Amino acid sequence: MDLLKQRILKDGNVAPGGVLKVDSFLNHQLDIELYNEFGKEFKRLFSDVPITRILTIEASGIGIACIAAQYFNVPVVFAKKAKSKNIDGGVFTSRVESFTYGKAYDIMVSTKFIKPDDHVLIIDDFLANGKAALGLIDIVTTAGASVSGVGIVIEKGFQSGGQTLRDMGINLHSLAVIKSMDDEGNIEFED
Amino acid sequence: MDLLKQRILKDGNVAPGGVLKVDSFLNHQLDIELYNEFGKEFKRLFSDVPITRILTIEASGIGIACIAAQYFNVPVVFAKKAKSKNIDGGVFTSRVESFTYGKAYDIMVSTKFIKPDDHVLIIDDFLANGKAALGLIDIVTTAGASVSGVGIVIEKGFQSGGQTLRDMGINLHSLAVIKSMDDEGNIEFED
Repeated sequence: MDLLKQRILKDGNVAPGGVLKVDSFLNHQLDIELYNEFGKEFKRLFSDVPITRILTIEASGIGIACIAAQYFNVPVVFAKKAKSKNIDGGVFTSRVESFTYGKAYDIMVSTKFIKPDDHVLIIDDFLANGKAALGLIDIVTTAGASVSGVGIVIEKGFQSGGQTLRDMGINLHSLAVIKSMDDEGNIEFED
Repeated sequence: MDLLKQRILKDGNVAPGGVLKVDSFLNHQLDIELYNEFGKEFKRLFSDVPITRILTIEASGIGIACIAAQYFNVPVVFAKKAKSKNIDGGVFTSRVESFTYGKAYDIMVSTKFIKPDDHVLIIDDFLANGKAALGLIDIVTTAGASVSGVGIVIEKGFQSGGQTLRDMGINLHSLAVIKSMDDEGNIEFED
């Protein structure tokens, strides 16, 4: 998606430790007009598969999923990272190792909100080592539902997550795939 | 907002400990069509004040803020609850005691994303003791910006947050204000 690639080149920064900072438009300040372009593109890319529900994970995925959901006319469910008073009863859980936060955490989704007849589109802002996406896939599978696809805004193509998901046969589309980036701020995309 | 009150009566549940569970449409599974009605209503309620930015807090506020932002044509900024690798440089911080999670936490917003000339609409899903809203107001004020208003989906009118904000002269609008609720599941609204 050229609009996104241009925006990453214009406003993205490479921070030490292999972190791509896109907090001015993607995951701290959110450009809702751009988010709508993501939504339209996800709809185009996943127009040929049944989708009854969008699943994402807090926090950065939620806004992207909500805007995209308007193009699919389906509800959004987001996986929660910590047990709060507001979740009780049955939950599906999976364990995720976070690249960004440098620690592992459990994610959970109430069993009320994914049913065996659901066709689930998983949406997230980043795909790096794929652990969050694998946790969400695990939850969908445990629910007996099917994964219609995984839609990612920015995939770090030099990390293993994309390859892992494609090897599993997952219908994965990333709006921008970064081939390489370095501490001098050079960013290259895959075609 | 009658549509919301009806939905709370239909799908909300009162859980022990004074928790109103609305996770089937508001804060775990998200009804995006209903979210758009929130957005239209916030636009109507805040049509007479300048708004350059919407500020919310992760996680449940993000989706509501993103959908609402489409009616204001402004970016969303969400306050983060934990320090991650993705925030560096200057941040505004404030300390919040959470009713839902039963503990205190720090929230932070990058100084890049609220400027002194900003007119900020604060949006969140719940208002109970008001601690999250007060933390967000504190951040806006520290940034030298002005609070144009606070828009809440569900206010617990029997807790002190709403009164506190109104006493401060904050332009507060809640789409539904709960007057009372009990463990038998009875929910009454203020007019």
